[in-house]
Amino acid sequence: MNTNIRWLREKMKMLDMQGAIISNPVNVRYLTGIVAEGILLITRKENIYLTDGRYTEEVNSVLTIDDEIIVHEFNDFSNDEYENFFMFCENVGFEGDYVTYNGYRNFMRKYKINNLQEMEKVIEKQRMIKDAEEIEKITKACEITDGCFKYLLDFIKVGKTEKEIASEIERYFKLHGADGVSFDPIVASGKNSSKPHAVPTDKKIDLGDVITIDMGCKYKGYCSDMTRTIFAGYIPEETKKVYDLVLKEQLKVQDELKEGVNVKILTKMVESDFELEKYSLVHSLGHGVGLDIHEYPYLANKNDFLLKDKMVVTNEPGIYIPEKFGVRIEDTVLITKNGCINLTKSDKNYTIVDKQLN
Amino acid sequence: MNTNIRWLREKMKMLDMQGAIISNPVNVRYLTGIVAEGILLITRKENIYLTDGRYTEEVNSVLTIDDEIIVHEFNDFSNDEYENFFMFCENVGFEGDYVTYNGYRNFMRKYKINNLQEMEKVIEKQRMIKDAEEIEKITKACEITDGCFKYLLDFIKVGKTEKEIASEIERYFKLHGADGVSFDPIVASGKNSSKPHAVPTDKKIDLGDVITIDMGCKYKGYCSDMTRTIFAGYIPEETKKVYDLVLKEQLKVQDELKEGVNVKILTKMVESDFELEKYSLVHSLGHGVGLDIHEYPYLANKNDFLLKDKMVVTNEPGIYIPEKFGVRIEDTVLITKNGCINLTKSDKNYTIVDKQLN
Repeated sequence: MNTNIRWLREKMKMLDMQGAIISNPVNVRYLTGIVAEGILLITRKENIYLTDGRYTEEVNSVLTIDDEIIVHEFNDFSNDEYENFFMFCENVGFEGDYVTYNGYRNFMRKYKINNLQEMEKVIEKQRMIKDAEEIEKITKACEITDGCFKYLLDFIKVGKTEKEIASEIERYFKLHGADGVSFDPIVASGKNSSKPHAVPTDKKIDLGDVITIDMGCKYKGYCSDMTRTIFAGYIPEETKKVYDLVLKEQLKVQDELKEGVNVKILTKMVESDFELEKYSLVHSLGHGVGLDIHEYPYLANKNDFLLKDKMVVTNEPGIYIPEKFGVRIEDTVLITKNGCINLTKSDKNYTIVDKQLN
Repeated sequence: MNTNIRWLREKMKMLDMQGAIISNPVNVRYLTGIVAEGILLITRKENIYLTDGRYTEEVNSVLTIDDEIIVHEFNDFSNDEYENFFMFCENVGFEGDYVTYNGYRNFMRKYKINNLQEMEKVIEKQRMIKDAEEIEKITKACEITDGCFKYLLDFIKVGKTEKEIASEIERYFKLHGADGVSFDPIVASGKNSSKPHAVPTDKKIDLGDVITIDMGCKYKGYCSDMTRTIFAGYIPEETKKVYDLVLKEQLKVQDELKEGVNVKILTKMVESDFELEKYSLVHSLGHGVGLDIHEYPYLANKNDFLLKDKMVVTNEPGIYIPEKFGVRIEDTVLITKNGCINLTKSDKNYTIVDKQLN
């Protein structure tokens, strides 16, 4: 049986669950490698993947004998057979954060389970620790993102719009081996950069603008996430001061990140450093990155949690001055026992673009 | 109060619901115009929109006094106050197809409701009939899509890859006033076109290829959806035969579509016409289009349902020859009392692209 499923089965034993219905496609992909529409049933005897006829060929081509997963089509089963899957299973787990209320009712009706039990994010927590193959894919996604940033420094010109730049990012990713973006890119210039979650507009890049570029792609399902804040033409004094502070803090966090660090204490450190200078940290310090762009663990001041070896998280402090501008600097990093490794490696020194659109 | 909320309140009365929790953002947008993170509470006395501080300003700028919606921040309320919202409401509706099982449990805990009741897609069904403003937005999304198709006929060259073309479609939409794509564009050439849901690959367009382009954009939240099948260099005889049949059928459906038509009978007509020629219709004949790219009504052979004036649906018959090629022709159309109006208007005659990449 593959390692991920074996690990899950161990965990289920500890939780006194004899079966599980896994329907979140991200969790299914994590446990099986399958990218399709279907559902994974873990029973006392078997691992079963149910899908429809369109996907059978594709699914069988992904699975190996080692996975020990049996593929069936939904239509192969009568109502009676559905009821038999979990016979003799007292407790069966399901993903209460993914399955809708109607979906839950449907499971109850279809599988006739004694006790259908919320799984409390067992798989999501398992996904926090990445294996070598996962780290390789995230690293590749980060490399493509670095390549894109380099390309953008030539592409961005005074006079181009935020939307044009955002659209070019998507194009670059698709043409350079990525599956696509891991989220809609943020390109926010001038005043727009003061909103942490700005959406690209038709505003043209102007001299003196700060430009926040937050982007990431997916490679074989795995995400990257990076933000750089750059300047058009020159760096206004006020901006420079904020940039220096954010960068100093980002590098300080980078020095701290390693196995055993408490994310609550780390976040509070950044908050108090910012507050000393009369700024505040309005969003969390970072988040896990993997098959989802935002996943466990969350680096926030509420989260009394220790980082572990082989977690992949973002390090993204930011300062936002309402109605004026914002600065955020973000890397995707790999946590190790001795420190962290930046997987996104684009330059963080002052970067000025000053070419004009003809 | 705005028309959509008033209509919903009428419907709730009929269902003996004194309150409702609306959390699907698409339904919230439909009822209020708000695009944010939040939740709409319909109580006996008021319409309340709960959101967080980041969105308050934006939300208030969208609402007018006519909406009769009161905006509050989540943090404004104590646990006791949450419990008071639905005091004296016997039955409170929620969206069982959107809210997760954990979300449902959370509502139960937070609002202390006697009977939290699945709403059975009341709002989704209400959304089927479009008002003048909605039709205008869909029409605009369709116009942008037609513009994109015209542009593509010049952009597509023998030697370009499917991915390059798909990426150019996304770029075009963003640069021509659309919010973005309404779904990932399908560009499938040669053999790839034999899969109805093909994903663009690095395959280059080759002479003799059929090219299926299925694309749509969003304009102010509203979607368009159009498919055209075109040819690179020349039209092979076998393909021409299938193309003629699909087009004949698409035009036949176009002639039939109007208020009062039964979608089951209509779908069966296409199925039997295809079967006469030894082909089959492997997907449904069409679907509603609005704030969602796929919404009610679904034009399928299981669906014993009559179309109504002011519904917007797709008309998209297709034939797929495994391992060889596929042809699909699709328009977004507006149903009226006397017939249907194509909102996508791109040419459906044989279209050949024959420029070569230098």
